[in-house]
Amino acid sequence: MTFPVVGMVGGGQLARMTHEAGIPLGIRFKLLSDTAQDSAAQVVSEVVVGDYRDLETLRAFARGCDVITFDHEHVPTEHLRALEADGIPVRPGPDALVHAQDKGVMRAKLTEIGAPCPRHRIVKDPADAAAFAHEVGGFPVILKTVRGGYDGKGVWVVRSEADAADPFRAGVPVLAEEKVDFVRELAANIVRSPHGQAVAYPVVESVQVNGVCDTVIAPAPELDERLAGEAQQLALRIAAELGVVGHLAVELFETRGPDGKPAILVNELAMRPHNSGHWTQDGAVTSQFANHVRAVLDLPLGDPRPRATWTVMSNVLGGDYPDMYQAYLHCMARDPQLKIHMYGKDVKPGRKVGHVNTYGDDLADVRERARHAADYLRGTITE
Amino acid sequence: MTFPVVGMVGGGQLARMTHEAGIPLGIRFKLLSDTAQDSAAQVVSEVVVGDYRDLETLRAFARGCDVITFDHEHVPTEHLRALEADGIPVRPGPDALVHAQDKGVMRAKLTEIGAPCPRHRIVKDPADAAAFAHEVGGFPVILKTVRGGYDGKGVWVVRSEADAADPFRAGVPVLAEEKVDFVRELAANIVRSPHGQAVAYPVVESVQVNGVCDTVIAPAPELDERLAGEAQQLALRIAAELGVVGHLAVELFETRGPDGKPAILVNELAMRPHNSGHWTQDGAVTSQFANHVRAVLDLPLGDPRPRATWTVMSNVLGGDYPDMYQAYLHCMARDPQLKIHMYGKDVKPGRKVGHVNTYGDDLADVRERARHAADYLRGTITE
Repeated sequence: MTFPVVGMVGGGQLARMTHEAGIPLGIRFKLLSDTAQDSAAQVVSEVVVGDYRDLETLRAFARGCDVITFDHEHVPTEHLRALEADGIPVRPGPDALVHAQDKGVMRAKLTEIGAPCPRHRIVKDPADAAAFAHEVGGFPVILKTVRGGYDGKGVWVVRSEADAADPFRAGVPVLAEEKVDFVRELAANIVRSPHGQAVAYPVVESVQVNGVCDTVIAPAPELDERLAGEAQQLALRIAAELGVVGHLAVELFETRGPDGKPAILVNELAMRPHNSGHWTQDGAVTSQFANHVRAVLDLPLGDPRPRATWTVMSNVLGGDYPDMYQAYLHCMARDPQLKIHMYGKDVKPGRKVGHVNTYGDDLADVRERARHAADYLRGTITE
Repeated sequence: MTFPVVGMVGGGQLARMTHEAGIPLGIRFKLLSDTAQDSAAQVVSEVVVGDYRDLETLRAFARGCDVITFDHEHVPTEHLRALEADGIPVRPGPDALVHAQDKGVMRAKLTEIGAPCPRHRIVKDPADAAAFAHEVGGFPVILKTVRGGYDGKGVWVVRSEADAADPFRAGVPVLAEEKVDFVRELAANIVRSPHGQAVAYPVVESVQVNGVCDTVIAPAPELDERLAGEAQQLALRIAAELGVVGHLAVELFETRGPDGKPAILVNELAMRPHNSGHWTQDGAVTSQFANHVRAVLDLPLGDPRPRATWTVMSNVLGGDYPDMYQAYLHCMARDPQLKIHMYGKDVKPGRKVGHVNTYGDDLADVRERARHAADYLRGTITE
């Protein structure tokens, strides 16, 4: 058996769906998971339960793996360097991944390479945050802990100096950013392999609700063609400059420049399969998960082009209704083309427990079908 | 956790791909496999290694499963009846499955319901086979053991009475069939659920080489529209009359009737996902595997329609070249749209170890791409 073993650190849904995409390629998966009940641990045959923050656990896990990749960005950078020193390929590697782990490092690097960013600087206390607000035209401003945040956690919209105390309580450096008056949010997703091949997916629109991604529309409707090309080029350039291997999501704000023309600013980077790329499972020739696997193994990448005019992804959040399986009857009967992707997670209010994909030629219809299914699965509608 | 557990008997590639299709639905799989190295056992988290011919093994396996389904048709019919008596849903059930297990029972039933079949009867010895040959216009005729055959095994093309001894050596009843002078082989694949919903995939052409399926073209090129409809209706009727639940493949001969018009005869039945339906993984809105899972759980079925003008599946057979992974570099670089499905099996000459799917608008191109990839993976071409 000459097929490689991919070691996946983290047992969440991204690991689950990456494993699913690896099955047809005959790739063997080994999973390091916090618990045996984690989303991916339910479907992977070789699971090690352990703590990714412990270097010896990581080292033992990495033995017998041909490459290590990730479900999340929380593995300490120094541990990744230690694995590399042991001779295990780590993809993306620590020198790239640190830019997705630390928002301060990310902003500094993006500024250095001339990528358009909101105005920003590290602030040392609430008074310094107020000074930053003054520099950018006043409150509100955004404060972020540089490490540990996701899905709106670790991010504060601050309206006054008195309001700015919370972000500093964790003892982690705090990054201040201007609050961008954006038109909408976009994402430019690319996949890059160690030998430098890269593919760019169509730029998508990401609709956020309460700081959490709710719906993704591929491609972003009525997006200026020049801007779409710029966004793809920017993502490819960031990946090359930062040495990213695997899937890179560049979350963007679409704004209006001083000349009134559409422009983009980089919001966040994620170096792993990303929620804004889930539509590719049913909407692209090659999914982000399949291409992530191919990239970390340095295999030639698959075609990222869309298979349908429009594809829409809507997240299924946990509601008050714990039994989503019963909802399958209605959802599948109503829409035989619906694609359901559930993560095997217990339902908790607000938790992402799955997503649905729909596709077709009529965007209004495609959006309505995704919306309906996501709401019905959550239990917020019953017909 | 209210999601059901599907118990899959058999650890081959059909189980592997059915599991893969169940992951997005959040369905939990439990696998009864001959060995821990079987194709599906490599990718399923809950594996019981045991002998499906042993009733107590089956019973212990079935505890904690919400439904039992199959990778193959070899579980003894009486064991399936015992599981049903224990209260475990078995899908397809023994009353249906016996028609795929026993070619004598299958021919008797098909004849009873008026499905078009080659002339046939059970023969008791070589002299009786010669008498049958005389009845249908002379040798050659086909002899088949009624149980235990697959992929050309258990089937003999017999040219004389002296030639007819082998089939009788196993001590299994022998079915004689006329050797049909067919134009080509087709397959009509449908999926049916316990409450009687059914979906029909487009009728495909199945190109056999040495008695083994080599390539499947979906839909069958230049197939008479009336005949395509007849084939789908026939498959739906067989499924309803036999009480099939899950995927049913009806392998057909396309012939010319006495009036010179195209006609069909039933060759074989398979009550499980089938090689002639592998194209649906990349070529249909809902794959045969996803619809099989939905059917055995009595969920509404998914849309069986094609997503591309043409989809072609070519099997990858083992050759002299054991390392198929190295061939990925060439195949993926040459054709970024290629879909590879490997089964994790050791390469042995002639063994089905995977398949490839290609799709597009130009049939000649789509066929060439599938052919090239299958040959390159096998190692029979090197450029």
